[in-house]
Amino acid sequence: MPDREDVLRDIDRNFDVAVDKLLKLIAIPSISAEPSGAAPIAEAAEWLKVELDAIGLPAKVVPTKGHPVVLARSAADPDPERTRLLFYGHYDVQPVGDRAQWKHEPFEPRIVEEDGVHRFYGRGASDSKSQLWTVIEALRAWKSVDGDFPADIIVLLEGEEECGSPNLADFIEAYRQELECDVAFICDAEMWSPTQPAITTQLKGLLHERVTISAPNPDLHSGHYGAVAANPIRILSTILAGLHDDKGRVTIGGFYHGVEDLPEPVRRKWLELSKEPGLLGEVDLTGGMGEDGYTPLEAMWGRPTVDINGITGGNQGPGERSVLPGTATARLSFRLVAGQEPEVIRQRFRSHIEARLPKGCRVAFEGANGTSAVVLSQESQFLTASARGLEQEWGTPAVLRGTGGAIPLVEQFSHRLGAECVVIGFILPGDAIHAPDERYDTERLRKGARSWIRILEAILGQATSAT
Amino acid sequence: MPDREDVLRDIDRNFDVAVDKLLKLIAIPSISAEPSGAAPIAEAAEWLKVELDAIGLPAKVVPTKGHPVVLARSAADPDPERTRLLFYGHYDVQPVGDRAQWKHEPFEPRIVEEDGVHRFYGRGASDSKSQLWTVIEALRAWKSVDGDFPADIIVLLEGEEECGSPNLADFIEAYRQELECDVAFICDAEMWSPTQPAITTQLKGLLHERVTISAPNPDLHSGHYGAVAANPIRILSTILAGLHDDKGRVTIGGFYHGVEDLPEPVRRKWLELSKEPGLLGEVDLTGGMGEDGYTPLEAMWGRPTVDINGITGGNQGPGERSVLPGTATARLSFRLVAGQEPEVIRQRFRSHIEARLPKGCRVAFEGANGTSAVVLSQESQFLTASARGLEQEWGTPAVLRGTGGAIPLVEQFSHRLGAECVVIGFILPGDAIHAPDERYDTERLRKGARSWIRILEAILGQATSAT
Repeated sequence: MPDREDVLRDIDRNFDVAVDKLLKLIAIPSISAEPSGAAPIAEAAEWLKVELDAIGLPAKVVPTKGHPVVLARSAADPDPERTRLLFYGHYDVQPVGDRAQWKHEPFEPRIVEEDGVHRFYGRGASDSKSQLWTVIEALRAWKSVDGDFPADIIVLLEGEEECGSPNLADFIEAYRQELECDVAFICDAEMWSPTQPAITTQLKGLLHERVTISAPNPDLHSGHYGAVAANPIRILSTILAGLHDDKGRVTIGGFYHGVEDLPEPVRRKWLELSKEPGLLGEVDLTGGMGEDGYTPLEAMWGRPTVDINGITGGNQGPGERSVLPGTATARLSFRLVAGQEPEVIRQRFRSHIEARLPKGCRVAFEGANGTSAVVLSQESQFLTASARGLEQEWGTPAVLRGTGGAIPLVEQFSHRLGAECVVIGFILPGDAIHAPDERYDTERLRKGARSWIRILEAILGQATSAT
Repeated sequence: MPDREDVLRDIDRNFDVAVDKLLKLIAIPSISAEPSGAAPIAEAAEWLKVELDAIGLPAKVVPTKGHPVVLARSAADPDPERTRLLFYGHYDVQPVGDRAQWKHEPFEPRIVEEDGVHRFYGRGASDSKSQLWTVIEALRAWKSVDGDFPADIIVLLEGEEECGSPNLADFIEAYRQELECDVAFICDAEMWSPTQPAITTQLKGLLHERVTISAPNPDLHSGHYGAVAANPIRILSTILAGLHDDKGRVTIGGFYHGVEDLPEPVRRKWLELSKEPGLLGEVDLTGGMGEDGYTPLEAMWGRPTVDINGITGGNQGPGERSVLPGTATARLSFRLVAGQEPEVIRQRFRSHIEARLPKGCRVAFEGANGTSAVVLSQESQFLTASARGLEQEWGTPAVLRGTGGAIPLVEQFSHRLGAECVVIGFILPGDAIHAPDERYDTERLRKGARSWIRILEAILGQATSAT
């Protein structure tokens, strides 16, 4: 096996080029959840295909019913003797949200130096264009130095992760054979802290619900009828306020059915992690609303939640308007744990709302997403080797962590293909993902790319040195 | 005194011209509460000045710190022997709100026949451009037939009623002398039913509050932090849900301080009115949220309320976004009764919110308006004569009613100038004022204009016949 230091040096030497390219990718507003994103999504897919082709990973842009998947493979006919590694990333991004809250342009990234850190801002800067770019840059460097990849490589870049991967299951079914692999690296996850890497072994499930309550009347003058007619905002507020009891538990009937407490060793490990500086230090939990009896990490990674993501009703204009609105809408998401079936939870939630609806009012639901939680093994050889590789690059052991986030592909791969998944990424809480002024920094990009070289080496060391 | 039938016939004959002009006025989007309304407001004021000048009421457009007042007087030097009558209306309109909810263009009114009724749709069609137009058309006809007005006439048309008349007090102070009158007719009120006229003798006060709750963090990923960090939408919902107890009473400390129950005769009269078909038949009160122990009319006209007029927080985009928002905003209005001081209620409300704010969160308030309730005498000669005039035109007695609406000028005139006010208008609940597809019909316009002739005759009959 050749000296990996050559490859690491190549990453360092080529770094300015890699950053320039990444900024070009971030500049493409590939928002999957909004209609305006369709053309930029197509542009980003094509751009990635060209980049993958150029580094010896022939790629195709595979259409789906929604946004396309970019699929690249180092060899059309896999060598049965070689290890098959799949890398998953997504090139779509979240909507911008309220543009006025951004200090930086969401799609005009450039390097700015802040307290010695070289940072770039933009929607997707962290989630997840930098993530996928660490992989592509690592693979480029390896091929460039060695002339070949160290294994059969498959790269799968999705365009619908941020809208719940509605077409991923069909894609996986159709491309089952081409996706067969020994291990799938899911490159869309968080570190533990700016200096300590992590592997995510537990992911929550996710479903979205949009609830619109309508009064018997359309908009009315609130001065005339406020005292007597139904107000959908008041009804909705009352229902939302009642979704948690005073211990922070969700009141939907059957919500916790099948949910088990964490295994004691995991609970103890997370309790220890709670004491370290890490992701909890990056946000202010004052006034927070956790569930009684659970530490923050337990609640974040191991307990199911209902979150209100948006609410809209009545006057939205600049001036005051004395209106009793005809409708009000809330958007909610549910983060599920093992034992909860998304569609069962959806139905229980809808029944809960219907049971609380005043006479004469109506409710309409719009559902989206629906993935189950995943708990991965902490013992597999690929995970153990990956942890070793990460430790070599960062000089400190990788934390085995959970996440409140969902990556639908992990569920699909684990449950449908039975593939082993290792979830690694280099996002930090301070990156403001899904929020205004999302950001990343060049040093993490460099060390992220280098991490993959270390991981490949740790995993393949024995196999390659044997040939 | 000449035959008033001539004047009534003139109104009927000239009717198509009057309707055409009114539609032109409605087509001007004179929204006072939005910055885009400034130019149309100025246009509408100028348009009204020209119309008033043309019928012998020399008018001026008086600038204020906000939108101008149009002030017209039949005589620069009032004749101390003649009765002085002031007519008040407003030419500004509410914001359109959600344009998608309108089936008709808000500012392109035209006559459409629906089940034999000739109707026109548009913001301001009912509130209040048709109202003021009944007055102008009545005055035009009188002058045209008689060659003179039957009294000294003052017409005051406000451009800021729909945003709480912030500059009206200053205007009244500055133009005190020119506004001196024996009676002020306030032409911005409702009938009792499509066939029965009404005089409004009791008006609520009004104040607006906008409340924005901020979490310690800006927007966060709700998957990651929803389980533990403060969610302003949840906080706001809980506060809003708690503003009323389970008897429908407002829970703000001291809210009912100074509020007295209705005098028994008024209560009895309103109870009787409740049994008649009237405005209660026009809306569906199923699922409504009245206050226990009060009939709907008592609640609407005689009990103070808090109404939620708008709410906004988190994701407003077309797609789903897993965001824990940094802020959430609610807009509320308070409808006050006698005994409640607007600014005292405002402070009590703010204290109520502050006391319920979780640690680490912040709240910001933006206040608007602030008028007290008004209870007018039901016994005055002008009111009695007006009721007689209305009965002549409509063939049925005028109902003496209350309203949940506020007309700041009534408070200003009653409390500041000590002028007698008579509040009459021809709005119906089905007109959808402040709501999408606001409407009016030509027959009510005609009978409204004719009503003023009857009222003038009833009031002035003795005076004019004596000259």
